[in-house]
Amino acid sequence: MEVEIKFRLEENVKRKIEEVAEFVCEVRERDLYFNHPCRDFLKTDEALRVRKSEKVFLTYKGPKIDKETKTREEIEVEIGDFDKSVEILKKLGFKPVAEVFKVRRIYKLGDATICVDNVKDLGEFVEIEVKSEDVEKAKGVVFKIANEFGLKNPITKSYLEMLLEKKR
Amino acid sequence: MEVEIKFRLEENVKRKIEEVAEFVCEVRERDLYFNHPCRDFLKTDEALRVRKSEKVFLTYKGPKIDKETKTREEIEVEIGDFDKSVEILKKLGFKPVAEVFKVRRIYKLGDATICVDNVKDLGEFVEIEVKSEDVEKAKGVVFKIANEFGLKNPITKSYLEMLLEKKR
Repeated sequence: MEVEIKFRLEENVKRKIEEVAEFVCEVRERDLYFNHPCRDFLKTDEALRVRKSEKVFLTYKGPKIDKETKTREEIEVEIGDFDKSVEILKKLGFKPVAEVFKVRRIYKLGDATICVDNVKDLGEFVEIEVKSEDVEKAKGVVFKIANEFGLKNPITKSYLEMLLEKKR
Repeated sequence: MEVEIKFRLEENVKRKIEEVAEFVCEVRERDLYFNHPCRDFLKTDEALRVRKSEKVFLTYKGPKIDKETKTREEIEVEIGDFDKSVEILKKLGFKPVAEVFKVRRIYKLGDATICVDNVKDLGEFVEIEVKSEDVEKAKGVVFKIANEFGLKNPITKSYLEMLLEKKR
């Protein structure tokens, strides 16, 4: 399970993250999201995307299972080629719905991954994530970190949902 | 386009292939085929499979476009992990229909690939294949090779179709 909380980013938090967390890398990510041919993912709260960064990944996300966070099942597999993956999905009837472009700075802090994201058309955000099957324990970890950084008002919507809302 | 003809294999043909064609490698292939959640692939003549050999591949096959051969569109992409790919497809509602296990000996002869297949529950076959957008020219090449080997009565059914027929 991917236990994750997200907040709008303020300058002072950015500085705090750089002080206490260990910087891993900066990546440019292009995420193309698809809707299912016969199951409306905007209603079932599922997601399927092809991500292009240094490598290419195919990712399925299950419905969010928690009201306070973005916690959901996530299955991800590396895939050899962005264009061919997209072509196969289109042949299967999957419909591209939106693309999310971002520059992501990744940090590690204990078991947590902290992502400082600059998302095209949406702005700057911080995501705190722990992968674990013990959701309650992982929630404890991510909320503790958020408190230490003084982060309030978590956003439970995904970037895809935020972008689609903005478009409407 | 994948222009391909298939025949039952006889011992003397096997010897001829080994004499004239260049042996490339022998691989064990496990092909798991899926049906679509809302489009019956057995009716639309499409196919989606995850293949495990030395590497793992995700392959979409379009409807066969020719009566004499197994010619059809094929889009294939390498994928990092067999089990995770299967898990994602199942989450998307794709249903496993059958598995094809075979030992494949691959040969090259000019532009053609010749596969000598020992397919579990079906027996031995030879497939002659040319990848090309010029279908008529490619058909000329594969039938010329088949003639030279004295191969008659091409089989236009896929291994999946043959296996499903046998099961019925």
